[in-house]
Amino acid sequence: MKTPSPSLLSLALVHYPVVNKHGEVVTTSITNFDLHDLARTSKTYGVSYYIITPNPAQQNMARYIHNYWQEGIGASFNPDRSEAFDAMEVSESIADTCLTIEKLHGKPPTLIATSARSIKNNISFNKLREDLTQNDRPFLLLFGTGWGLAPEVLEKVDFILEPICGVGSYNHLPVRSAVAIILDRLLGKF
Amino acid sequence: MKTPSPSLLSLALVHYPVVNKHGEVVTTSITNFDLHDLARTSKTYGVSYYIITPNPAQQNMARYIHNYWQEGIGASFNPDRSEAFDAMEVSESIADTCLTIEKLHGKPPTLIATSARSIKNNISFNKLREDLTQNDRPFLLLFGTGWGLAPEVLEKVDFILEPICGVGSYNHLPVRSAVAIILDRLLGKF
Repeated sequence: MKTPSPSLLSLALVHYPVVNKHGEVVTTSITNFDLHDLARTSKTYGVSYYIITPNPAQQNMARYIHNYWQEGIGASFNPDRSEAFDAMEVSESIADTCLTIEKLHGKPPTLIATSARSIKNNISFNKLREDLTQNDRPFLLLFGTGWGLAPEVLEKVDFILEPICGVGSYNHLPVRSAVAIILDRLLGKF
Repeated sequence: MKTPSPSLLSLALVHYPVVNKHGEVVTTSITNFDLHDLARTSKTYGVSYYIITPNPAQQNMARYIHNYWQEGIGASFNPDRSEAFDAMEVSESIADTCLTIEKLHGKPPTLIATSARSIKNNISFNKLREDLTQNDRPFLLLFGTGWGLAPEVLEKVDFILEPICGVGSYNHLPVRSAVAIILDRLLGKF
């Protein structure tokens, strides 16, 4: 069996548009742990990841943290972390991320949303893994912060990835864990 | 194929004895994000998890956070988080955790260490998943904080789980991601 190509896959952590616990569309704040954990997990699986926020102050904070670990004291204290942050880029919107990927690959990405709930237009892990093996087009996986991606995103994407099912009805994985499990299911060797 | 039994599996996040970046045996501090993320991931996969630290002030802090989300303002603000913290227990040592598990199951657990490096006495993911299906004895997975479990732990365990391999040589996953990937490989349905 051919191995899926990680270079075709990118992921984005979306801070807008997402919903809060009341279902209202909001912009969430960046979480420092997300930047680190997603950088390390993305580097492990060889994918690029984008931090999406329209807020300039939040973009600056993400870039400040990125630069601290790549050029500041952090880079000499922990070179492994510096290497991880190679994978990260700040972006102002989903559309902007798609343009960046199109410039890199010559084609716009197939957009795949993730959700903790089962929603129509699902794609299975096996099917997406197969697509990553057999195609040469880029894919962008979208992860929502807060209470998940806004309905307007879910309506526009090409597919919604099937949810991760545990052993019971509890479906509140941290986004950091969901990213790790999904990358492993799509690209892991085991 | 039979499904592995999550109730036989527990995990422990070890803060002592672990090594620092210089290979010295130390006690690490508890990280708040670990408590939350491991609670949520453990609850998703139906396993118990133990926070191991010999430091009474650190034990108290972990219990304070646990109680805040189970009984305090946190419980009403986010009932899902309250449910997740059901999975967590504070323990003073690996030996103490083994005793707790022995009291619950009538047998001491088979001890399995995790490591980012390939070390002798490995057990594969497939073999451990099979063992969880075919046995009625408990298993305890040990995860090290800092720069990993101390050599004295690795020498005493029954097995060391094979490392998670990504697509290149980078092997610095956050413990939060490693726990998620390992539970999914052992207990996930996909």
